Amino acid sequence: MKVAGRRYRSIWLDDSTGELRIIDQTKLPHHFETRAIRNLADGVEAICAMRVRGAPLIGATAAHTMALALFEEPADSALSRAASALIESRPTAINLRWAVERVVEAVSDCPIEKRAERARREAIAICDEDVACCEAIGTHGLEILERLASSKNDEPIQVLTHCNAGWLATVDWGTALAPVYKAHEAGLPIHVWVDETRPRNQGGSLTAFELSEQGVPHTLIVDSAGGHLMQRGQVDVVLVGSDRTTACGDVCNKIGTYLKALAADANEVPFYVALPTSTIDWQIDDGVADISIEERDELEVRIATGLNAEGVVTDVELYPTSSPIANPAFDVTPARYVSGLITEHGVTLPTREALGALRRRLVE
Amino acid sequence: MKVAGRRYRSIWLDDSTGELRIIDQTKLPHHFETRAIRNLADGVEAICAMRVRGAPLIGATAAHTMALALFEEPADSALSRAASALIESRPTAINLRWAVERVVEAVSDCPIEKRAERARREAIAICDEDVACCEAIGTHGLEILERLASSKNDEPIQVLTHCNAGWLATVDWGTALAPVYKAHEAGLPIHVWVDETRPRNQGGSLTAFELSEQGVPHTLIVDSAGGHLMQRGQVDVVLVGSDRTTACGDVCNKIGTYLKALAADANEVPFYVALPTSTIDWQIDDGVADISIEERDELEVRIATGLNAEGVVTDVELYPTSSPIANPAFDVTPARYVSGLITEHGVTLPTREALGALRRRLVE
Repeated sequence: MKVAGRRYRSIWLDDSTGELRIIDQTKLPHHFETRAIRNLADGVEAICAMRVRGAPLIGATAAHTMALALFEEPADSALSRAASALIESRPTAINLRWAVERVVEAVSDCPIEKRAERARREAIAICDEDVACCEAIGTHGLEILERLASSKNDEPIQVLTHCNAGWLATVDWGTALAPVYKAHEAGLPIHVWVDETRPRNQGGSLTAFELSEQGVPHTLIVDSAGGHLMQRGQVDVVLVGSDRTTACGDVCNKIGTYLKALAADANEVPFYVALPTSTIDWQIDDGVADISIEERDELEVRIATGLNAEGVVTDVELYPTSSPIANPAFDVTPARYVSGLITEHGVTLPTREALGALRRRLVE
Repeated sequence: MKVAGRRYRSIWLDDSTGELRIIDQTKLPHHFETRAIRNLADGVEAICAMRVRGAPLIGATAAHTMALALFEEPADSALSRAASALIESRPTAINLRWAVERVVEAVSDCPIEKRAERARREAIAICDEDVACCEAIGTHGLEILERLASSKNDEPIQVLTHCNAGWLATVDWGTALAPVYKAHEAGLPIHVWVDETRPRNQGGSLTAFELSEQGVPHTLIVDSAGGHLMQRGQVDVVLVGSDRTTACGDVCNKIGTYLKALAADANEVPFYVALPTSTIDWQIDDGVADISIEERDELEVRIATGLNAEGVVTDVELYPTSSPIANPAFDVTPARYVSGLITEHGVTLPTREALGALRRRLVE
């Protein structure tokens, strides 16, 4: 997708220097800065410091960093040291472990001197597959938007989204935003209501930035506003991503997603979840009973970051420490509130039967 | 209620100096400062700058300021000049006009030299009536909390509230928080989940401050968290205030109230609204159709205020101006999601019939 009119992925090998580069997402939305990742230490630091975030992008960064580590030192000991360092950089990121193990596997029967090149090919493949997966989600989601557009008489389709499930969380296209980008490319009039997404404000900082740079009309709102907009008929469809989806279609996603699903249900607004099938957890059915919700640091709520009057990025403490804070990071939207799951294989109903059929297709 | 162990109202005449004083709410939660209101200009400034906020407190401040204006100059021309200046200081505040007109009426057949004293008596009466009204709401709401407590085996009653409907919005006690204070005084174990309440953060800044100073256990959460907590059985009752309630029981309140009502409904959590009967709009039935929602300045969303690293109150810009912002300030919760309306006269069902009976009682 584009930034300042130029096409980017969220991670890439520079054409002229061959250098691995990322967008430093900690600087967004105030500054757009790219950054070289030159070795294992740089890659680990970028993941730890959340310069890259979003499961697919973390995995892609780890895979590329494995290659850099092997260019430095291709021996077995260095390989396992690099793998451990990366896996420990964000312990809860499932994709990270998966990507690192995939690279380790790929180089396992490779002569030592060819390991780095082989690892790099694998990293490139991981990135390209992620792009293809997200683009396919976009294509399938576009069909939903096209159907909605047919009853809108050239009025913009009104989408509401929560958090950032855009290209900055993946390598390109994103998940929930991929259909939006496809629709915009296809010339469908579209407008996105962007939930700010407290406490980390990924909607206001990342989704709004992405849409701005891509030229997609959008309006930022506080997380509390979505119900009101749906009640007044100002939302045609809710599109969100998912961190983890159960075998019965319950959806775990950023805290607040569930409230939007309830409002969509109450106001007969379709509620779609976009996700790669790799994020479906086939081992669990009941998301409310079986998914334990990560409680994150209260500083995420207490501290806000923005530009001060001098234009300097500044942290301010919103609330005194006399009041304790709870910060559950995700919630579970039961399948009954989900209109459909948009994956790279099409749109699936959130039922055990439909997901079972999808799973059989995946293993074939 | 208390601040630092000392009892306060939100507006009072100082015992020793006779001076009118307020709490400068723009400094909360970081600094607790009281401030003298010495004349008309001070009173208008305090209302304009939102040093006092909340309809009942604005009305009380305006009434007392009328008295100050008449001490300065009791002639007819000064009286009407003061009334206009105050009414224009917050044009949408219904209570403000009501309080000013009540004082004008009270002094209308008074000899000029006695006008100021008469106005002051009226202002004191307005304050005392507000306190009595809120305390009665607290007493009626306490019965609901006592019933809930009876099934909790000495575990704390878990209340969730949105925005600030506490004593800082009124003269004392508050509306939604009055039952909480009554329960705490009565020794019922109670814990309050406090919605941060973006964009102005009145929950995190005012409600959490009030509860802290009163020693009521509470936890601050982002506005998106309440649905998750209700789904997991961590909320026994939702208690909110109301800016305006229709003759059929639809409730207009701070944006986001509606989403909490939907979550309460989905999870069978009782949802009560506390309000003085003076805020019922008997002229309208359908809140969604008939209440137009104020769209407030986007800077409320874009700018956050807190303490910087040096402890100085600082504004930061969270989001760049490249993304437009919509800021609807209120939403409407349809009566079917409301378990009951707690007024100074008891708990009323949110139906045309029950409200009609309440109205007949009021006019008797």
